[in-house]
Amino acid sequence: MKLWDKGNSIDQKIENFTVGNDRELDMHLAKYDLTASAAHAKMLGKIGILDGEEVKVILFELEKLQQQVESGSFQIEKDFEDVHSKIEFELTKSLGDTGKKIHTARSRNDQVLVAMQLYFKENLQEISGKTSELIDVLLGLAEKHQDKLLPGYTHLQVAMPSSFGLWFSAYAEILIDDLHLLKAGLKIVDQNPLGSAAGYGSSFPIDREFTTKELGFSTLKYNVVAAQMSRGKCERTVTSNIASLANTLSRFAMDICLYMSQNFDFISFPDELTTGSSIMPHKKNPDVFELIRGKCNKLQAIANEMILITNNLPSGYHRDLQLIKENSIYAVENIKEILDVFTYSIGLIIVKEIDLKDDKYRYLFTVDSINDLVVQGSSFRDAYKQIGEQVQNGTYEPTDLKNHSHIGSKDNLALDKIAEKKNKRD
Amino acid sequence: MKLWDKGNSIDQKIENFTVGNDRELDMHLAKYDLTASAAHAKMLGKIGILDGEEVKVILFELEKLQQQVESGSFQIEKDFEDVHSKIEFELTKSLGDTGKKIHTARSRNDQVLVAMQLYFKENLQEISGKTSELIDVLLGLAEKHQDKLLPGYTHLQVAMPSSFGLWFSAYAEILIDDLHLLKAGLKIVDQNPLGSAAGYGSSFPIDREFTTKELGFSTLKYNVVAAQMSRGKCERTVTSNIASLANTLSRFAMDICLYMSQNFDFISFPDELTTGSSIMPHKKNPDVFELIRGKCNKLQAIANEMILITNNLPSGYHRDLQLIKENSIYAVENIKEILDVFTYSIGLIIVKEIDLKDDKYRYLFTVDSINDLVVQGSSFRDAYKQIGEQVQNGTYEPTDLKNHSHIGSKDNLALDKIAEKKNKRD
Amino acid sequence: MKLWDKGNSIDQKIENFTVGNDRELDMHLAKYDLTASAAHAKMLGKIGILDGEEVKVILFELEKLQQQVESGSFQIEKDFEDVHSKIEFELTKSLGDTGKKIHTARSRNDQVLVAMQLYFKENLQEISGKTSELIDVLLGLAEKHQDKLLPGYTHLQVAMPSSFGLWFSAYAEILIDDLHLLKAGLKIVDQNPLGSAAGYGSSFPIDREFTTKELGFSTLKYNVVAAQMSRGKCERTVTSNIASLANTLSRFAMDICLYMSQNFDFISFPDELTTGSSIMPHKKNPDVFELIRGKCNKLQAIANEMILITNNLPSGYHRDLQLIKENSIYAVENIKEILDVFTYSIGLIIVKEIDLKDDKYRYLFTVDSINDLVVQGSSFRDAYKQIGEQVQNGTYEPTDLKNHSHIGSKDNLALDKIAEKKNKRD
Amino acid sequence: MKLWDKGNSIDQKIENFTVGNDRELDMHLAKYDLTASAAHAKMLGKIGILDGEEVKVILFELEKLQQQVESGSFQIEKDFEDVHSKIEFELTKSLGDTGKKIHTARSRNDQVLVAMQLYFKENLQEISGKTSELIDVLLGLAEKHQDKLLPGYTHLQVAMPSSFGLWFSAYAEILIDDLHLLKAGLKIVDQNPLGSAAGYGSSFPIDREFTTKELGFSTLKYNVVAAQMSRGKCERTVTSNIASLANTLSRFAMDICLYMSQNFDFISFPDELTTGSSIMPHKKNPDVFELIRGKCNKLQAIANEMILITNNLPSGYHRDLQLIKENSIYAVENIKEILDVFTYSIGLIIVKEIDLKDDKYRYLFTVDSINDLVVQGSSFRDAYKQIGEQVQNGTYEPTDLKNHSHIGSKDNLALDKIAEKKNKRD
Repeated sequence: MKLWDKGNSIDQKIENFTVGNDRELDMHLAKYDLTASAAHAKMLGKIGILDGEEVKVILFELEKLQQQVESGSFQIEKDFEDVHSKIEFELTKSLGDTGKKIHTARSRNDQVLVAMQLYFKENLQEISGKTSELIDVLLGLAEKHQDKLLPGYTHLQVAMPSSFGLWFSAYAEILIDDLHLLKAGLKIVDQNPLGSAAGYGSSFPIDREFTTKELGFSTLKYNVVAAQMSRGKCERTVTSNIASLANTLSRFAMDICLYMSQNFDFISFPDELTTGSSIMPHKKNPDVFELIRGKCNKLQAIANEMILITNNLPSGYHRDLQLIKENSIYAVENIKEILDVFTYSIGLIIVKEIDLKDDKYRYLFTVDSINDLVVQGSSFRDAYKQIGEQVQNGTYEPTDLKNHSHIGSKDNLALDKIAEKKNKRD
Repeated sequence: MKLWDKGNSIDQKIENFTVGNDRELDMHLAKYDLTASAAHAKMLGKIGILDGEEVKVILFELEKLQQQVESGSFQIEKDFEDVHSKIEFELTKSLGDTGKKIHTARSRNDQVLVAMQLYFKENLQEISGKTSELIDVLLGLAEKHQDKLLPGYTHLQVAMPSSFGLWFSAYAEILIDDLHLLKAGLKIVDQNPLGSAAGYGSSFPIDREFTTKELGFSTLKYNVVAAQMSRGKCERTVTSNIASLANTLSRFAMDICLYMSQNFDFISFPDELTTGSSIMPHKKNPDVFELIRGKCNKLQAIANEMILITNNLPSGYHRDLQLIKENSIYAVENIKEILDVFTYSIGLIIVKEIDLKDDKYRYLFTVDSINDLVVQGSSFRDAYKQIGEQVQNGTYEPTDLKNHSHIGSKDNLALDKIAEKKNKRD
Repeated sequence: MKLWDKGNSIDQKIENFTVGNDRELDMHLAKYDLTASAAHAKMLGKIGILDGEEVKVILFELEKLQQQVESGSFQIEKDFEDVHSKIEFELTKSLGDTGKKIHTARSRNDQVLVAMQLYFKENLQEISGKTSELIDVLLGLAEKHQDKLLPGYTHLQVAMPSSFGLWFSAYAEILIDDLHLLKAGLKIVDQNPLGSAAGYGSSFPIDREFTTKELGFSTLKYNVVAAQMSRGKCERTVTSNIASLANTLSRFAMDICLYMSQNFDFISFPDELTTGSSIMPHKKNPDVFELIRGKCNKLQAIANEMILITNNLPSGYHRDLQLIKENSIYAVENIKEILDVFTYSIGLIIVKEIDLKDDKYRYLFTVDSINDLVVQGSSFRDAYKQIGEQVQNGTYEPTDLKNHSHIGSKDNLALDKIAEKKNKRD
Repeated sequence: MKLWDKGNSIDQKIENFTVGNDRELDMHLAKYDLTASAAHAKMLGKIGILDGEEVKVILFELEKLQQQVESGSFQIEKDFEDVHSKIEFELTKSLGDTGKKIHTARSRNDQVLVAMQLYFKENLQEISGKTSELIDVLLGLAEKHQDKLLPGYTHLQVAMPSSFGLWFSAYAEILIDDLHLLKAGLKIVDQNPLGSAAGYGSSFPIDREFTTKELGFSTLKYNVVAAQMSRGKCERTVTSNIASLANTLSRFAMDICLYMSQNFDFISFPDELTTGSSIMPHKKNPDVFELIRGKCNKLQAIANEMILITNNLPSGYHRDLQLIKENSIYAVENIKEILDVFTYSIGLIIVKEIDLKDDKYRYLFTVDSINDLVVQGSSFRDAYKQIGEQVQNGTYEPTDLKNHSHIGSKDNLALDKIAEKKNKRD
């Protein structure tokens, strides 16, 4: 039951090869194809290609299918190549010739385009929302643990005093960067491609501004060739922006796994979030965060896949574009799950007391010792030399912990400023 | 002459290995390090670590070096590890103990950070400007050639009528998407990291809001650990956003190379833009656009390199981060050159007359033929079948070329709307 | 029913997150886990940890499960985390305490390792076989069409005469390179990791040389830490070698799609291998080869994913490694399907007659014209200039088609030499 | 002074854009172009295109240039586009018309191809040699430190006892896998492409088997189109195989950096191999190994770049291929330097005594405790439960360290077997 079937039989193996897992993926798109089909039908009514009654019955049938989607009973049976064939089939079954008219002045190309873009739009908003929540949780943790110290490392070597407050809110502030990128992605997908048909428009006097308004898009992708080229551009952008977010979470997860090692022993998690070993009964492994790290690293690979599939293809649709659907949807669905699991799990973190007076941390304080000398009149470079010699002689004695007063430092976290930055972003 | 030299001799081979090509790269950063050092000195004056006279002479010396940079006489000699050592050396040579004080309350880490971010900020603005110019040139070409037809392809198969107007302005509109991404990148680099020192701040009461204003940053990266993590985040973002732009240009270049083939013969370029062969004297090869394509494809690989270098590193500075300097600067410098060459070269394009009545293009008009039947009352699906049968029987006769009236189609390019979208973007 | 369950309840969402799609993937591994478990049981018998009767009943039960796998009735129910838990459960259900003993002296880690490596080994051999078949088909096509000419292009510009014989056998010879890489991959996976347990071996006096022979591995990965590190190394190698093969097929598919365009019109395929359009009834699109191209490009992205997941992880197992299973199995299963479809489809290619006297191909012969002059005594460079001037004046007249006598040229394809190279590779 | 210059002036900016840094890169290729040119000249003599005297003087001139290359006085001046133009210019300057004849029956394409492949061939052998040396050093270190214990980790959690002997020799054995891949790469580049000219052969009766023998290639790439396609294939293969080696070294470097952290404190290096901080005088940072890690991660990105540049390009030369020269040469030159630095530096490693009785390591011994129970008759699963309960109750007492007798375990390193595997590989 493929729309373009011209009657030739096609070998089953080839069919499986070409259809792939579209049916499964398209379950994510059903809602959006129905919405876009309704807008298209109304527009065809407005320009007189459908009459009022035809529009009404089509909208009624689409609404019924939308309810199936919402209730979870909608299915794309094996007879159908994809969600678009399925929906058109249902309309034709219920409405006969009227159903057949829905494909006037559109093509499968712009149908997929508009459904994908509506899907991305709604999901980028959801991802931003979840990221924003995580930021709030992290700022809360930073506040709660602001006085708990942590050794700061550079080159994985003990460097200077840090704190849990700094650590939690650092990731919160970096996540705001990711929100900026998600927003740029949102702008790119929020442009109506419907009406571009096969990428060269239509000889019907369609009203693309009407469907733009109807679908809630901020603007159109005016040029029909540009609209067609959005296939690929949107996927590259969305997956690349998700990758940026994934990178932040992956690095955070790396810190967590490291800090849970017995050799650091800075944090732990309740048993529900750790797993055992098939051979070692003492193990409480940080599998959840290892999987977050690994899954986020997987997500970072996807933008490159999108480029590899689309790169060096001349303009105009190619069937290769079907293949970018899978992992762009995968990226969207995964990052949402990862954000949920991360936000839930980080809330359960157990912060330990760390004894910065332990011998291995004694050099955390050399910079403060230098600064003492500078305050007493030494130049920074000379004070550096003096303390350096003490370290080499073994005569160095750590100073007391200093208060850091400047904005963004361990004793002045500026959490409100970070929250404000998040909330005030345009 | 390395700042951190503690007197141990280091094998020359190891030194070459660790210094790499930093001296060469840092020539791009000299200007920004001088600017940031001046702001830092003023701030040290403001909080009383330097006195008024010290600030004055330091600013004077920095200004002298800035003039060397502008005049092209500034050099980083082999004795220096990088631009930062060089500048501090010059200050100390001229000012003695006063020069040594400039490094108070900062670290090489935040020095590099602030210089890189100032470099990125200025260059992202320049890249956006060049992209905007290219868009204007393309819109101009679209207007000039709006009536010249072009066969439209899908699957590289003849599909429906298109036009040079559509082709040029399609890329113009897609480039606006790239401008959105560049702007998100700009937001991310436009946050002052200075004052984060080695990533854990300073015990001096530095005034980071003062340097923020002084350097023209829109905001601070407040959290000092976040500021340190910006190393990597900025590079990934900038190279990823440049990659998006490169992808657009690469695909455009692919079209151009294909359309110059004798088998398409849609366009050509004057001899100055083509090159010959060492063996075939008739050749006029599109080397400029092949190199644009190839260089843009190279640029698309760089974001992945940035990820590979930084991925799975725990937080805190690692020396690996030195290595992301090279190709992030490479990406910036290259995309500027590519944009210049592209804008110059596309302006010289020669658009040929294409005879759409040539037999190989006869099926360009089948959709219009279907639409004729639909207007006469047929459903789209039935009309599709009827014309399909004519094609298979060999009885199909192309209709006359139809006017396309809807917005964004070949006869209604909406160039003003596209220009407005570009100009009105926030 | 997870082996490491210590009694703590774990939130369902977290469980889904950690288990992922392991059950589905592990269906590919059941056969190999059963084989390896049998070898392990025999070895435990040999060293006296199991007695003869215990070995016998375990082997009997494993064989029963193996028959279920072969008949397609084997299932991994939702209660089980993975195939390994399932199999151990079945043994314990049937054999009680005896079943519980099978996990002595091994860990889930080396269980997965050995199953994956057996899977890769068998499949790399199968992939090599399928590639070899495709080479034979291509050599056959080259012989059949050896006299049919094709314009040769450089820079997509008409360059010099080529032939279908050259074109088909070029890809055949390049595929031999891919066979070399597959063979190196085979060497890497063909090293027994069993006995490495969790990566640090066992205090039991296990006989790893026995299981090596039993499982048909060519050698052991001796060092247990190295054996553990093979997880990741094998996946990177296998997917990278498959990517090389995919690259060859992808470029071949690009040629095919281009040559099917009406603007080239060099080849076609029967209707069964082309698909239509939902809007354009004349379309016979090369979807099969576009999907081969796209799928092969997807495969080329996977090696990078493997690197991204494993990169910068310290030695020792991490849960992240679970995630490389999915796409390494995907790569293996896909390339097999692609090879089948490619070999089947290329056999149906229709080679058209191309008129090299068509005006657009007139300059195909300039090099031969130069060579004529060289034979008459001119230096190559002078002859090049002379013909170049004729081209520019418009006075150039193509010479007759020349015979090319040297090995590997259009008239001396050396197909037997290529076949010999393939067959004689060590 | 470009060979294909047809007299048209070309804008300087465009020229810079097209020439790029070829002159610099080509310094690596001069030796090989001279070698290949000599073989080509002899062959032209053999088939009578050059007479004996011409061959003699050409070989004499090429030899003079080869001596310049060896002595370091060879230069490619700014007037020349690349090394090939330079050499032909020198021949023509010295020999007049005879010099002009050298380009008969070849093209720049096969000239570059053969030079690159000779370069890769020699370097892959050198890289294999250096890798083999590193393996020997590691096996030596393993032997020397075989009795020194190390905690073994999984999930970065304390797991089971390991040793320095295991750790060093694990990387040695994994590096043998990389040798297999390098060898497959060697096979691929060791096929003579000379004579393919512009990718479609020559009408001259050239003797490609003669040049194959003369240049020491093991075989020919027979098919001229395949020979041309080797451009790209060789670069992808070589960089991908180098990436595999780089991955091994990168992970090793990660271990080293982690083990040098005060929180592990397993190893250290002499001061010559560590560097300080511009702000913290106590720092001895593992910059050398961080840079090895970072540079190796950079190398892992290059294979993807090679794919991105060449992917989806139809067959036949494209100018894009010029751009794969840079980073494939970069990869070769870098990995050699990295191997030198790694081998030198690892030889200086200081292995510390680790107290496995420290409380944080107490659970290293749980598996051995289980095995004790198994030996006493318990099933593995029951023993696992029992020890697990002790761990949870806090009643667990570590057993004494067990000897591991099986091959490849900490007390039976099988270093001779690993050495033999390396030496006996075909």
